Amino acid sequence: MARRVGIGDSSIASFSIQFTTAGRSLWRSNHGGARRWREGRTLRRASATSLGAARLCALSAGLCRLATNRAQLNPHRTSFASNIHESISPVRPVAGVAAPCQPPAKGLPYEPLEQDLSNKGELLRANPVHGKVPVLLHGGRPVCESLAILHYLDEAFPEAAPALLPSDPRARAHARFWADFADRKVFECGTRLWKLKDGEARARAQEEMVVALRALDAEHRDKPYLAGEAFGFVDLAVVSFAAWLPGYARLGEFSLEEVCPRLVAWAERCGERESVARNMHPPKKVCEFIAYLKDKYGDK
Amino acid sequence: MARRVGIGDSSIASFSIQFTTAGRSLWRSNHGGARRWREGRTLRRASATSLGAARLCALSAGLCRLATNRAQLNPHRTSFASNIHESISPVRPVAGVAAPCQPPAKGLPYEPLEQDLSNKGELLRANPVHGKVPVLLHGGRPVCESLAILHYLDEAFPEAAPALLPSDPRARAHARFWADFADRKVFECGTRLWKLKDGEARARAQEEMVVALRALDAEHRDKPYLAGEAFGFVDLAVVSFAAWLPGYARLGEFSLEEVCPRLVAWAERCGERESVARNMHPPKKVCEFIAYLKDKYGDK
Repeated sequence: MARRVGIGDSSIASFSIQFTTAGRSLWRSNHGGARRWREGRTLRRASATSLGAARLCALSAGLCRLATNRAQLNPHRTSFASNIHESISPVRPVAGVAAPCQPPAKGLPYEPLEQDLSNKGELLRANPVHGKVPVLLHGGRPVCESLAILHYLDEAFPEAAPALLPSDPRARAHARFWADFADRKVFECGTRLWKLKDGEARARAQEEMVVALRALDAEHRDKPYLAGEAFGFVDLAVVSFAAWLPGYARLGEFSLEEVCPRLVAWAERCGERESVARNMHPPKKVCEFIAYLKDKYGDK
Repeated sequence: MARRVGIGDSSIASFSIQFTTAGRSLWRSNHGGARRWREGRTLRRASATSLGAARLCALSAGLCRLATNRAQLNPHRTSFASNIHESISPVRPVAGVAAPCQPPAKGLPYEPLEQDLSNKGELLRANPVHGKVPVLLHGGRPVCESLAILHYLDEAFPEAAPALLPSDPRARAHARFWADFADRKVFECGTRLWKLKDGEARARAQEEMVVALRALDAEHRDKPYLAGEAFGFVDLAVVSFAAWLPGYARLGEFSLEEVCPRLVAWAERCGERESVARNMHPPKKVCEFIAYLKDKYGDK
């Protein structure tokens, strides 16, 4: 059970975030040295002392200040004990699928909250079905799964521009198709690449990853972004895999520049965006992390 | 390549439908004895002769008459050559994931269009990335993937009640979570059950299917429908697997009544709905179909 819903699945998206709006959901102050949180309706407004004056000031304006966290990606460390005061300084989450960039993309403030994936007590309460991240906590209640979180942010905060999804139903279907494609296909092939030992199944994963990346590359065409002229839903869904692509290419023994040159250029373009740069890990660190996953959880 | 995106994946959802609204998309007249269709903007309004007076009459009222197709599920027959005139008489599609019930659920007229899955020429043009069904054709242009189709129907026809998704963002996220869960987990475990030969991986699929069905059963609680008081998005996403459950249970050697009694009662309740009954195959036939899939495409 732990193996199937465990680190193998969840570390790829190894973070969760607590989304905070004034009076609806706040950090609980640090407890026992580790930042802790509660889901459900029991969250209380934290004190000025535990939040910091600047943040409370922004809270009073409606939405709290964006307090991002920055930490080194450390494959051998899945638990991050931190003091609540750290949330004031910029800290980066462990790694991410879609969620880490989501709130900035909507201009919404959020707090990343790192999870101890080797001890899923709290995480399992928030996402008991999958037992994995990302989990968005808003008003203390969880919203699970990357694309559901993106939809939720668009729908719960319609006033926060820009909208992630376009307004035209057909364009929305198109965006959903490609976001789902990346979320399922790229993720799934990547997992198989580091999980499986050499053999037919792994060779198939290798080939499928190349086909998937070629498809994304072809979809990109010459648009500035996958979503079109503006960075949007599809970009958010795919960009979270960008830092993982060099690692997948190394495992799959293919050249990203040959397989998906436009996607490589697109990833660089996305990386110039402040919200992306702040939330992405250096590909080199992710490569190390993939090697760690392979070593610890892959079939040997 | 053909194996991975082929019948193994697509036969589970072995149909596609042409969705028609007045003046935007129509059947092309029959050609060479087989019903054919085109995607893109090239579709022309068919003649009265090829459509039949009754249908044209309804078309003039805005949306064309619902012309469902009825055919026996035949595991040994994946190609359905049919004359365009057959679309007037009620015919049932081969099998389905979410799509077959979608238009009726919104009260929208549609035409099921069976596909020759052993000859994917036309299907691949409509869904070149996955090369599988369901595909919704509206205005002659494709919308691919079950949940994207459900979203599209809700968004492209907001005036067609009832809405499939609730209006509250959190309830929408909840619905999407469970629809995605069924679409990924149940489908994926089911495919592994008939594809894999005995072994550790198959035993894991067996166990995961039981866990997945228990989770759906627990989610059901005592609501009339998975979506709540009214049949909605989640029900549509899950009900398409209902006829497959007895087959999965047989392969997985578990009792549906023991694992998910509420889900069994829910499936029966759904089956009393005319839109569901019209589009579902008898579980016995589906069991035969699964046996055929296992025999023809499973690892031996």
